[in-house]
Amino acid sequence: MATAGKVIKCKAAVAWEAGKPLSIEEVEVAPPQAMEVRLKILYTALCHTDVYFWEAKGQTPVFPRIFGHEAGGIVESVGEGVTELSPGDHVLPVFTGECGDCRHCLSEESNLCDLLRINTDRGAMIGDGQTRFTARGQPVYHFLGTSTFSEYTVVHVGCVAKIHPAAPLDKVCVLSCGISTAKKFGCTDFVNPKDYDKPVQQVIIDMTNGGVDRSVECTGNAAAMISAFECVHDGWGVAVLVGVAGKDAAFKTHPTNFLNERTLRGTFFGNYKPRTDLPGVVEMYMNKELELEKFITHSVPFSEINTAFDLMLSGESLRCIIRMED
Amino acid sequence: MATAGKVIKCKAAVAWEAGKPLSIEEVEVAPPQAMEVRLKILYTALCHTDVYFWEAKGQTPVFPRIFGHEAGGIVESVGEGVTELSPGDHVLPVFTGECGDCRHCLSEESNLCDLLRINTDRGAMIGDGQTRFTARGQPVYHFLGTSTFSEYTVVHVGCVAKIHPAAPLDKVCVLSCGISTAKKFGCTDFVNPKDYDKPVQQVIIDMTNGGVDRSVECTGNAAAMISAFECVHDGWGVAVLVGVAGKDAAFKTHPTNFLNERTLRGTFFGNYKPRTDLPGVVEMYMNKELELEKFITHSVPFSEINTAFDLMLSGESLRCIIRMED
Repeated sequence: MATAGKVIKCKAAVAWEAGKPLSIEEVEVAPPQAMEVRLKILYTALCHTDVYFWEAKGQTPVFPRIFGHEAGGIVESVGEGVTELSPGDHVLPVFTGECGDCRHCLSEESNLCDLLRINTDRGAMIGDGQTRFTARGQPVYHFLGTSTFSEYTVVHVGCVAKIHPAAPLDKVCVLSCGISTAKKFGCTDFVNPKDYDKPVQQVIIDMTNGGVDRSVECTGNAAAMISAFECVHDGWGVAVLVGVAGKDAAFKTHPTNFLNERTLRGTFFGNYKPRTDLPGVVEMYMNKELELEKFITHSVPFSEINTAFDLMLSGESLRCIIRMED
Repeated sequence: MATAGKVIKCKAAVAWEAGKPLSIEEVEVAPPQAMEVRLKILYTALCHTDVYFWEAKGQTPVFPRIFGHEAGGIVESVGEGVTELSPGDHVLPVFTGECGDCRHCLSEESNLCDLLRINTDRGAMIGDGQTRFTARGQPVYHFLGTSTFSEYTVVHVGCVAKIHPAAPLDKVCVLSCGISTAKKFGCTDFVNPKDYDKPVQQVIIDMTNGGVDRSVECTGNAAAMISAFECVHDGWGVAVLVGVAGKDAAFKTHPTNFLNERTLRGTFFGNYKPRTDLPGVVEMYMNKELELEKFITHSVPFSEINTAFDLMLSGESLRCIIRMED
């Protein structure tokens, strides 16, 4: 490739300040270093996690920064030591990684890689602690090791899943984050807690003659986690926590709820190992075993990325795809 | 049997008041009614649960009462409808039952029988709400449906496990309660929380390079439950709660401890179904796959049953066997 080993000038959506609209401008993207790859992003999507760290309420601000972590793209070039990927491969960058060597990667049960597990504070590459982005002559921080709100980005090879080249990147890009926990749900009843005087767990227990067999909590709200746990049936019920809680949150329940043979566990990224398992999830979608279209409610060109923020903040969108090449 | 269908006069240890020494005296034991069996108790043992309800602190007192729930004995006679047991069978009475028909009994995962699960408040038989014991001309309440501190007792057939007739009742009697959760442990390290300035879970995490794979909490202390959960390794750790908590206890932790792929579950009676599974546990002991002797630290004749209470209250005994026929 003509660009390999050289700085690429391209457009990125830079967040200069917390909560202020992103500014689309020219950035310089340095070549990938050892164990890194440079990707051309074709489609990205906006997730609540981007918004949360862009708002930066109660956080140590890390700005200027390029957000974005749900995306699909193509490898432009690879750094020293990268043997698993080649220019032209279709890939999903992932906000959490899989080094392949640590105790977690070697365990069949865990995907919490010691080296590359999610780190929301880090704004640079782990190899040399530097950023690969420059805008207006100053360094721009990375986000979640992905920074996909840019036409080109640099990512650690352990955070890149190589997928089937025929998979439609404008759809499967959402698999690089939250949708990987959603699979296909069959909902038979909806319960709005506000419709009842009693706790929602009691409503569900009454509706189901003792509680549900399985429950999943996806919001990160601690009260909802407690409800999700307390509404499973004693003897065999299992509740799974997915939603990420705030730093001051507390899960609190009477120990008897456990002693009556209920199980509570948490999952991170659907327990998928990003590099090992994501290609198979993409193929599930290609085999029509997984529905993604219902989650994708909007689509905008890159130039209108701030509209995606507005749609999410107003509650209108579930997922808004951002088309980088339009 | 000459005694079948008749009232039996025998000795029992009656608790007339909370926290006062038991009084061994003559009681009348009525014949078993429908779905009940009358047992001749040969060996019984004292458990913390007996002491807790005998002390009756903060409880609605249920006295006079005959305590005792860990025991081994022989069927003396059976009531109407009992087909699974016959006079002469060797049995363990159990404080929780297995009706065989409810959703829990039909589930492979649960042992929390809807009809016969543990009820610490109930002082009478579930068939007719009456007691089968009379002392000094007045009814005496049952405890946990077993009341084994008596030479004869009446128990619901669903709370009786028939065991191998060659099993030594003076040993396997302790299997009718807590020891069924203990199996064979291999302890490599002991940690005394009082030896450290930091929380014990942090000590264990440091000792084990990130936490243990499995932990079991047996005391019922809520702080110990939290430590047991927080000391398991992220990614794959599982903590199991066994100890029964007080009514005002709370289990509290940060939800992230779950989200980092830890599991917490509770178990009741080691998840054993009492009638289905206990005979096999007894045979494990007979095959030397289970050690009971190390738990049995003392033995006294029935006439010295109050000594068993003293030994437990002073912390000297783990299990004290009470020999009914001495």
